Amino acid sequence: MVAQLNYTKMVQIPILEQQQVHTFSLDRLSLQRGGLLGPIQITYETWGTLNALGTNAILITHALTGDTHAHDTERPDDPKAAWWNLLIGPGRPIDTDRYFVVCANVLGGCSGSTGPASIDPRTERPYGMRFPLITIHDMVRAQHALLEDLGVRQLASVYGGSIGGQQALTWAVLYPEMVQRVVVIAASAALSAQGIAFNEVARQVIMADPLWNCGDYAAERAPATGLAIARMLAMITYQSEVSMDQRFGRHEARREEVVSPTAHPDLGGRFDVENYLYHQGGSLARRFDANSYIYLSRAMDLFDISEGFSSLEAALARISSKALFIGINTDFLFPAKHVRALAEKVSALGGDATYIELDSPHGHDAFLKEWEQMAVALQQS
Amino acid sequence: MVAQLNYTKMVQIPILEQQQVHTFSLDRLSLQRGGLLGPIQITYETWGTLNALGTNAILITHALTGDTHAHDTERPDDPKAAWWNLLIGPGRPIDTDRYFVVCANVLGGCSGSTGPASIDPRTERPYGMRFPLITIHDMVRAQHALLEDLGVRQLASVYGGSIGGQQALTWAVLYPEMVQRVVVIAASAALSAQGIAFNEVARQVIMADPLWNCGDYAAERAPATGLAIARMLAMITYQSEVSMDQRFGRHEARREEVVSPTAHPDLGGRFDVENYLYHQGGSLARRFDANSYIYLSRAMDLFDISEGFSSLEAALARISSKALFIGINTDFLFPAKHVRALAEKVSALGGDATYIELDSPHGHDAFLKEWEQMAVALQQS
Repeated sequence: MVAQLNYTKMVQIPILEQQQVHTFSLDRLSLQRGGLLGPIQITYETWGTLNALGTNAILITHALTGDTHAHDTERPDDPKAAWWNLLIGPGRPIDTDRYFVVCANVLGGCSGSTGPASIDPRTERPYGMRFPLITIHDMVRAQHALLEDLGVRQLASVYGGSIGGQQALTWAVLYPEMVQRVVVIAASAALSAQGIAFNEVARQVIMADPLWNCGDYAAERAPATGLAIARMLAMITYQSEVSMDQRFGRHEARREEVVSPTAHPDLGGRFDVENYLYHQGGSLARRFDANSYIYLSRAMDLFDISEGFSSLEAALARISSKALFIGINTDFLFPAKHVRALAEKVSALGGDATYIELDSPHGHDAFLKEWEQMAVALQQS
Repeated sequence: MVAQLNYTKMVQIPILEQQQVHTFSLDRLSLQRGGLLGPIQITYETWGTLNALGTNAILITHALTGDTHAHDTERPDDPKAAWWNLLIGPGRPIDTDRYFVVCANVLGGCSGSTGPASIDPRTERPYGMRFPLITIHDMVRAQHALLEDLGVRQLASVYGGSIGGQQALTWAVLYPEMVQRVVVIAASAALSAQGIAFNEVARQVIMADPLWNCGDYAAERAPATGLAIARMLAMITYQSEVSMDQRFGRHEARREEVVSPTAHPDLGGRFDVENYLYHQGGSLARRFDANSYIYLSRAMDLFDISEGFSSLEAALARISSKALFIGINTDFLFPAKHVRALAEKVSALGGDATYIELDSPHGHDAFLKEWEQMAVALQQS
């Protein structure tokens, strides 16, 4: 019925050099909430070398709109060249001289891994909203299959923040024998009602965009307005009242040329913070798939580490890894008290858990900005 | 060009009994940011009786989507019958046996006062986005004209929360000789970058609704989806992470019949907090005008009590009223520290300022919920 649309790809995926990004294929995966998905592709990047025993691997799990590119060997000192660039490399906290470091795009993502923008082999059209419901658990099981394929037998560490932290925690619960150390950053046992609420507003904004069209759209007619506004909202929740005050205050915009997602009637000028949000919204809309945003944010909502276990305690008692939990004092998406409570619960259950709190104005995003504090924290044994 | 549309009224305004709501007319008002607006109508309600000297009046200023109906004499004990119902009445903190209490719908509002949904006499069509930019200062000057018309010479108190608090503060600065006491609740000298950011996301959501149509719409084709989603977002900012956790947690929705603003594909069920937000969003969309929401939220952003003065200190030094500032410990839209800082500044400038902090999980909305604490606070001399 929409044969005239070009479905070859749904979104403009950033082009990474071919030799960097690898692809792992899996025939099928049975999903936590039911159904089978397959064939599946998972894209990933690696740095360093796996030892003969397969015991020196590190897995890095990315956040909601992240991708495989945690480190850039061409520009290792540019914090913008890759999302955890400064923490990874020879002699750095995640030491590529000693470890084989893997970062995979999550299942349901849109940076090469199978997601709603991928072609459904049954219909030869993109899945769109026919993509099955996926969970953090499914993402982790796909990563596990990838690591087995790579010959990894032990993970020296799993590191992740935000939904990456949900994945890291899931790793420690699902595969305790494989994970020697887990680092869970700015994530808790389950997202709060407020977090779910923000995510649902973002999804409603996307779905209210007429171009969303129940999830059936081509790249050139994607719901960019809805996705951009959803991102504007999310960007507020990744920061803090203090950091936004420091960065923007009530200053007028200096760069009027930034395009707003929709109309911007003259209502007494434009604030700098508005320009910033327009810029961030537009940037994400150009690089990310709206349906993927819907599915991944929903996986974040649905995540509850106790799912599939008789209780939260039963799930957490499985953790035998050394566990480091990192909270951020100004995070209002995953408040530090919840991260701390998780660490305390693991500890009370006999686990080897440590809690560190970053002192930063940057809110949730501090784990992607506070390089010095993060470097110190990650080296905590 | 849209002659077929019925422009007699743009939104469904709640019908209040004729005898309760009065209307004041003003030929014209010169606006703070330039231009003249007129003729203007301001609707208001009153309770109690003005004394012969005109010195026992109290003004109550309402929040963003509030209206004239602060108290309901028919159902004085029903907290839902009017927005400050339990605080007003004979023998109550705002004592209608002693005082003549006035509450007016703000200029730019949509509960009878002139706003974007009103008919522009020049075109005989609703103003829409041709309505001029209005500020808190303009709202206060319209209220001042109303009170003069009513014969009020002294205000025993001005009370307001949120943008009502911005108005109350403005009263104390613009008309120090007239205001004996001011009570500023959950408002600061100027909105933070984060607050502006949330408001701008809400406005973008409204303007992204195709039915918004650059502000030209008829009541039966209003941008209800955009307004409902904007309200969903605002409702999060009026509460707190703690109160949402207490009220909703991660419970599944019990009332599936609530209609979401846009699609709600089955993505692992529906959380109670989502249902709540759908309900709140839909309710506002049925009773409020989207353009009015845009203008009033912008007035909230633009408010800076120092505007028109050489400095913040110069503005605040004008206050000669007894001033009570009430912050809320969990408010993240107007953080308590900003309310406290304002009180301290007024005090440092020689003003008679007191600060009280409500201890409540309810966030910004606590001033519309914590009746007992509010009653105690308002009786603070």
